[in-house]
Amino acid sequence: MTHRFPVQVYYEDTDMAGIVYHANYLRYIERARSDWVSSLGLDQNAMRDDGLVFVVRRIEADYLAPARFEDRLEVVTELSSVSRVKMGLTQSVFRGEQLLFKAEVTAVCMTMAGRPVGLPAKICALRA
Amino acid sequence: MTHRFPVQVYYEDTDMAGIVYHANYLRYIERARSDWVSSLGLDQNAMRDDGLVFVVRRIEADYLAPARFEDRLEVVTELSSVSRVKMGLTQSVFRGEQLLFKAEVTAVCMTMAGRPVGLPAKICALRA
Amino acid sequence: MTHRFPVQVYYEDTDMAGIVYHANYLRYIERARSDWVSSLGLDQNAMRDDGLVFVVRRIEADYLAPARFEDRLEVVTELSSVSRVKMGLTQSVFRGEQLLFKAEVTAVCMTMAGRPVGLPAKICALRA
Amino acid sequence: MTHRFPVQVYYEDTDMAGIVYHANYLRYIERARSDWVSSLGLDQNAMRDDGLVFVVRRIEADYLAPARFEDRLEVVTELSSVSRVKMGLTQSVFRGEQLLFKAEVTAVCMTMAGRPVGLPAKICALRA
Repeated sequence: MTHRFPVQVYYEDTDMAGIVYHANYLRYIERARSDWVSSLGLDQNAMRDDGLVFVVRRIEADYLAPARFEDRLEVVTELSSVSRVKMGLTQSVFRGEQLLFKAEVTAVCMTMAGRPVGLPAKICALRA
Repeated sequence: MTHRFPVQVYYEDTDMAGIVYHANYLRYIERARSDWVSSLGLDQNAMRDDGLVFVVRRIEADYLAPARFEDRLEVVTELSSVSRVKMGLTQSVFRGEQLLFKAEVTAVCMTMAGRPVGLPAKICALRA
Repeated sequence: MTHRFPVQVYYEDTDMAGIVYHANYLRYIERARSDWVSSLGLDQNAMRDDGLVFVVRRIEADYLAPARFEDRLEVVTELSSVSRVKMGLTQSVFRGEQLLFKAEVTAVCMTMAGRPVGLPAKICALRA
Repeated sequence: MTHRFPVQVYYEDTDMAGIVYHANYLRYIERARSDWVSSLGLDQNAMRDDGLVFVVRRIEADYLAPARFEDRLEVVTELSSVSRVKMGLTQSVFRGEQLLFKAEVTAVCMTMAGRPVGLPAKICALRA
């Protein structure tokens, strides 16, 4: 699957170097993951009411070129691996054809008390 | 009472105008309120476990001069009014002697479901 | 004029009370102002290259009801006053018909060194 | 060298899962890097006036356990490698003895126009 998600850069996202503050790319790709999860028919509000949340375990991120105020970006998300308990996502941020940022994200599902649980069936079902 | 709280400006706080992004002063003064509440012997984690949270009802904020990266600021908090259900706080952000930001904050206490409840006794007790 | 701008609530916007962190409404309405300014044909990147930025002088904000994760909100912006050097904006955040947040924002234009300058002609021209 | 930097968790840092939002650890470790750079006698404001900024090139981050509201954390930063143009830092976030987060950060120095330049001499001098 390939999921595409638009992001626009606002004042809040920039820092005094005149570019997007590096931590904010993690917010951008998290928005994209939420949109993707929602597109699978999963309701994170309902999950949380059941005491379940997605948790990021690991991120490897490469910053290739800076985004700037008013840039219109696209986050491209691809599922790179999925097991019963863990998924790997490749998430890239593009401005037009130019790749600005790329991350490998490993995420799991946990109870709010921190106990690992299996991923939702709708995600496990994406296993090739 | 007068409560004093130090804040340092980091890269994350700045925007592309080279100054502290305006919404971040609300974060600064909220840190000061949390520190003040804690100094009264109130435990916001325990309150939340009981389903109770402080909620901001109104803010009047004046931006007088900008703060910049690496500025060392001080938030001065004064209780301007308190009733059984509502408190008013005057919060000022200084850099040395210079007043940069001033806000009047009205806060209440609610259940996480949104039902108003009385303020904690330790706050009501501050009534002159 | 009335300007309408959509905002969706993401995980990053929430806090441990399960609702949108109060300072983030200021980010939402700033996005809407940037979009409005852009719709007038003003380019804030070019302004900044010329050393000019918009600066918030005052905000009066009322928090009426909380927004939650995945809410789809609308920011409605109306110009309430404009002089050669200062504008007043009324900005409301709605979820459907329900008003969640309302602010009166006073903004001016400055050089990056902090000297006040007149508002751009395209904004002054909106004077009734 | 080993640099230690205290961080306290505030409301702004949490998300609706009741824990620190994952992107905020990048803010925490960036504060620690700024403090470390400052402790070396480098002035990032003066650097920026000269058109020079530090830029993150790569982050590998492992999330081991969540931090919560009011936690008092410590960021431990160690220089793992340094060349004329690039430095590697190992940054760990502890709550007491417990390691919560660990990152390998690669950073470089650039002009604000995006041209790579050498690292400041005070950093290169740390080469073993």
